Amino acid sequence: MKIVTLGPEGTFSHEMATLIGADEIVLVPTIGKVFAEVVKTGTTGLVPLENSEAGGVTSTLDCLMQYPVTITLESYLPIHHCLAGTSEQITRIYAHPQSHEQCSRIIEDLNVPVIHTESNAASAIAQKSDPGSAAIISERLASRHQIPLIRSNIENNACNITRFVQISPGNSSQGLQATGEKKMDQGLEKCSLIIDPDENRAGLLYDLLTPFKREGVNLTRIESRPSKRSMGTYVFFLDIQCEGNWKTSVTELQQIAPIKHLGCYGRWQKQMENS
Amino acid sequence: MKIVTLGPEGTFSHEMATLIGADEIVLVPTIGKVFAEVVKTGTTGLVPLENSEAGGVTSTLDCLMQYPVTITLESYLPIHHCLAGTSEQITRIYAHPQSHEQCSRIIEDLNVPVIHTESNAASAIAQKSDPGSAAIISERLASRHQIPLIRSNIENNACNITRFVQISPGNSSQGLQATGEKKMDQGLEKCSLIIDPDENRAGLLYDLLTPFKREGVNLTRIESRPSKRSMGTYVFFLDIQCEGNWKTSVTELQQIAPIKHLGCYGRWQKQMENS
Repeated sequence: MKIVTLGPEGTFSHEMATLIGADEIVLVPTIGKVFAEVVKTGTTGLVPLENSEAGGVTSTLDCLMQYPVTITLESYLPIHHCLAGTSEQITRIYAHPQSHEQCSRIIEDLNVPVIHTESNAASAIAQKSDPGSAAIISERLASRHQIPLIRSNIENNACNITRFVQISPGNSSQGLQATGEKKMDQGLEKCSLIIDPDENRAGLLYDLLTPFKREGVNLTRIESRPSKRSMGTYVFFLDIQCEGNWKTSVTELQQIAPIKHLGCYGRWQKQMENS
Repeated sequence: MKIVTLGPEGTFSHEMATLIGADEIVLVPTIGKVFAEVVKTGTTGLVPLENSEAGGVTSTLDCLMQYPVTITLESYLPIHHCLAGTSEQITRIYAHPQSHEQCSRIIEDLNVPVIHTESNAASAIAQKSDPGSAAIISERLASRHQIPLIRSNIENNACNITRFVQISPGNSSQGLQATGEKKMDQGLEKCSLIIDPDENRAGLLYDLLTPFKREGVNLTRIESRPSKRSMGTYVFFLDIQCEGNWKTSVTELQQIAPIKHLGCYGRWQKQMENS
């Protein structure tokens, strides 16, 4: 399988694409470009959706709103960072903003300026041309760029995990019925939805959740994002478990507010068995 | 009034602090340091909480979880960005990640590499020493650093607004009664809460919202953040309107899940009247 994901070589997205068994990996510089490529060429894409420490990846969430794509698989990658460099007196740190957030404690202790980069790979490259600096990168990247480790596993939380989703071109809004009926026995676990209520009133969110409560459907995640229409109006990203009468709930919800159905999907297991 | 906020000079936080009438402004390099300074010295702080395009400011949300502070005021600042530089052939763009997100459309059109910086002021400084580049900054910063404007109002959305909150040291958890009774007539409009359910079950969020639905209390915002305990567990930031029986709802909610009460506060009006 050919997968387009976030490069350059050595990103966690690249690592995840390798693990899930891509035969050919196309690396592009931004998450927006992953979505654009998926829609344009029909290739499968892989993007980070949320991290257990840093939260939702906003560019992925915004692209899920914007592009006609379907989520076809989720996968989880344990994330470990290290501090790498050659100097005993670190003058500055190169870090991607997400890596910064995941390692904020050690960065606060070091108390030197942090320069944000576009990717972990870019942090490694910046470190190489700045001998007084250190980079927050994976051990894999440190080894690839031959940068000595100063300290390993510097993430705030030892259980630091990123959740990725695999995306395919095409809206699945019209496919709820089909997906629901045909694939229920093929290991589908979750369904992702975007609700765009286009109104703001007391009890709105409660009403949106009522169909799930009534059918006892478990909501595994809810995240709000600005609607980008005006301040104080939001859209909601919901992940639900495909159990019991979940389809009834979704059908009822559709009568309350416009939804974008992002698809039903299973979880890639191998990584979890090995780790 | 003395206010500590995010520097360096020329940030939107600095502008907001000036507008709300600070006599003395202390500028620190990160949002975390604003909170630390507020708690350590007892000074009032000012931090950005959310933007209408880019969403919640995660460092502020995480610090609100972590530090014993109370929100005492909210204020809104219309945000306009410009593209500033000297070259006709732009080779790269310096931008703060939030400014990048707010101006993503023009950046995509320009199709040149983006270098992320720690603040808008840092983008201006970086541009000055890199003649082929452009910076995404406010007109105020461009003028301060004498960088020619290439294009004004480049934000994706003309109604681009950032919501700031003023913070004071001290938990307000114990002060719900006092705040609610004493100050209801003094223009308090909103109350902010963090709910940390420490469990994950079908219908949980619905149950958390039930007290508000029952009393007809308007929820103006809900945002989830990782609990940082494990993947898939979240805390919820809620803003409610201080109307009707909102105190009954909060008291009921306290019986369902642990909450951190961030305080009740009014809205700074002058800016909105002038704009």
